[in-house]
Amino acid sequence: MDAGLINPFIQSTVNVLSTMAQTSPTVGQAAIKKGHKTWGCVTGIIGMAGKEVTGNLVVSFDEGSILGIVSKMLMEEFKEINKDVVDAVGEITNMISGGTKKLLSEKGFSFDMATPVILVGKDIEMTQLSKSPVLCVPFKTDRGQFVLEANLAKRA
Amino acid sequence: MDAGLINPFIQSTVNVLSTMAQTSPTVGQAAIKKGHKTWGCVTGIIGMAGKEVTGNLVVSFDEGSILGIVSKMLMEEFKEINKDVVDAVGEITNMISGGTKKLLSEKGFSFDMATPVILVGKDIEMTQLSKSPVLCVPFKTDRGQFVLEANLAKRA
Repeated sequence: MDAGLINPFIQSTVNVLSTMAQTSPTVGQAAIKKGHKTWGCVTGIIGMAGKEVTGNLVVSFDEGSILGIVSKMLMEEFKEINKDVVDAVGEITNMISGGTKKLLSEKGFSFDMATPVILVGKDIEMTQLSKSPVLCVPFKTDRGQFVLEANLAKRA
Repeated sequence: MDAGLINPFIQSTVNVLSTMAQTSPTVGQAAIKKGHKTWGCVTGIIGMAGKEVTGNLVVSFDEGSILGIVSKMLMEEFKEINKDVVDAVGEITNMISGGTKKLLSEKGFSFDMATPVILVGKDIEMTQLSKSPVLCVPFKTDRGQFVLEANLAKRA
């Protein structure tokens, strides 16, 4: 997608984590995604669909980052990726997408969000059927890392 | 989702396969999905998002069924799940969703489609963050089987 569109995704990610999980992640450099594997060990995916644009938002967490985030979010210490953590990844994906939707609507991009899908497992082979490149942004928390992947493009 | 909504998904699946791949699948009995694993070895997912409804359509193929379908679709014999087959799964998912969108719009359900995501691999742990059950329908072709999973629900 157009690199100029990535900032609302980043801003929304930072907003959601600071509001919901008292976590201020460090934001790394955006780059075009290479290869076709999921980045972390638990991955949220949500479709974005409007009359003129289409895409997906993907957030993939390593174990340390997501256990830290969900433990703060639910005010209970989680030590493994169980059903509550999986559901929380879906909620986080939904909230990041919702915040991005609001920010992008101010730039004239209008879309609705599909239902979040959560994958558990490392190195899952995942491809998006899009001619537009997927942008990825790494984030660091005090307990680990996660990667945001965004692809939003005009319909062919 | 409401069981009454499944027929447009089934009808669209049969239409797409007969038109694009000269394949007339046998349709099995719809049921509520149990568990959280992908059914086949290659799986297309597409988000559906409207003002009032949200969901995902998932189509998961075993190796025999998808190699048979794509070989007919692209008029070339495919013997393994390579990039062309993965892209074709994305296209098929897109077309089934597009046909369903048209049929459901006649019933007053309006949504746009996100960008297809394709997963390669067996037994991938996959959950949808939805309070609405996922309906699944098995199909049989002359070379294998596949399963359609549909979840379309009113927004909470």
